Amino acid sequence: MWTRLQRSLCFDASPWLRLFRDEVRLPSGVTVGGYYQIEARDFAMVFALTHLREVLCLRGYKYALNALDVQLPAGYLEGDEDPLLAAKRELLEETGYEAESWQALGRAIVDGNRGCGRGYFYLARGARHVTEPNAGDLEDHEVFAVPLSSITSMVCGGTFRQQGTLACIALGFAALAEEG
Amino acid sequence: MWTRLQRSLCFDASPWLRLFRDEVRLPSGVTVGGYYQIEARDFAMVFALTHLREVLCLRGYKYALNALDVQLPAGYLEGDEDPLLAAKRELLEETGYEAESWQALGRAIVDGNRGCGRGYFYLARGARHVTEPNAGDLEDHEVFAVPLSSITSMVCGGTFRQQGTLACIALGFAALAEEG
Repeated sequence: MWTRLQRSLCFDASPWLRLFRDEVRLPSGVTVGGYYQIEARDFAMVFALTHLREVLCLRGYKYALNALDVQLPAGYLEGDEDPLLAAKRELLEETGYEAESWQALGRAIVDGNRGCGRGYFYLARGARHVTEPNAGDLEDHEVFAVPLSSITSMVCGGTFRQQGTLACIALGFAALAEEG
Repeated sequence: MWTRLQRSLCFDASPWLRLFRDEVRLPSGVTVGGYYQIEARDFAMVFALTHLREVLCLRGYKYALNALDVQLPAGYLEGDEDPLLAAKRELLEETGYEAESWQALGRAIVDGNRGCGRGYFYLARGARHVTEPNAGDLEDHEVFAVPLSSITSMVCGGTFRQQGTLACIALGFAALAEEG
């Protein structure tokens, strides 16, 4: 374990993120003076399967890619919101779907060195369309359903260009494989 | 697409990262005054298979998790280094292994909203031990090989707690599945 000796706030962009500069001591005794940490909002993401074993996807513009990308329903947690509730809320807001059963797939940090928040991942089954999407996001996106059997070739083809999406797919496929 | 109207540098922590505040105009005409972007170093990561169909893993301390985590060989690109060369270099430095064949699996951005750099992912086959590891990282890690058939249950069990690792596993498994 490393010991944090000191932390200074470099920039405060609350509520989106804060940048810190830590001074840390390693187990070897060596001190590192400038180890940067990014505190950012956690998010929830959903690998949602319909009754037809289709996966709900979104196509929308991502500013950091400066391109359209395909992703799974996801969004930032509001305050100290429970991640599962955030996942359900985001699925409904972004796709207009509700799901019958929910399974936590785990969580992962965005960047193991810098932090940048955590993702909480869920597998939702029996998703059905109940209303129109109402995401309130900065830009519109298109909702579409993809046969589960097509996801692997989409992954190979470079369809998903955000790490969080790929992480959720890894967790979703592993959970489905484990149950046989 | 969004149009960047202005960019201001909030904090410069080169060579590690820079934090920017962008003013952007959406297709709707709405202007957003504070959209933050993090410029960080790209990295390469390797899903490396030995002749025995084992996956090379590392166990080491990650500061942002404040815990030990299991990950795949990876590291930052040096300057304008070719990502494939970085992947080969990191595999050798971190594990002491070289691989017979290399396949690009694709790339993904760390955070689709903020940026935070990109990961370049590779599948390496025929990895064999040629020397001792010499990572020069801040802390030691342990190298171990896991049967490919065990990775799924490790994913389910929460062994991998960084998004990049899970993303690389998704890409590696998809590539192996596609080839049958």
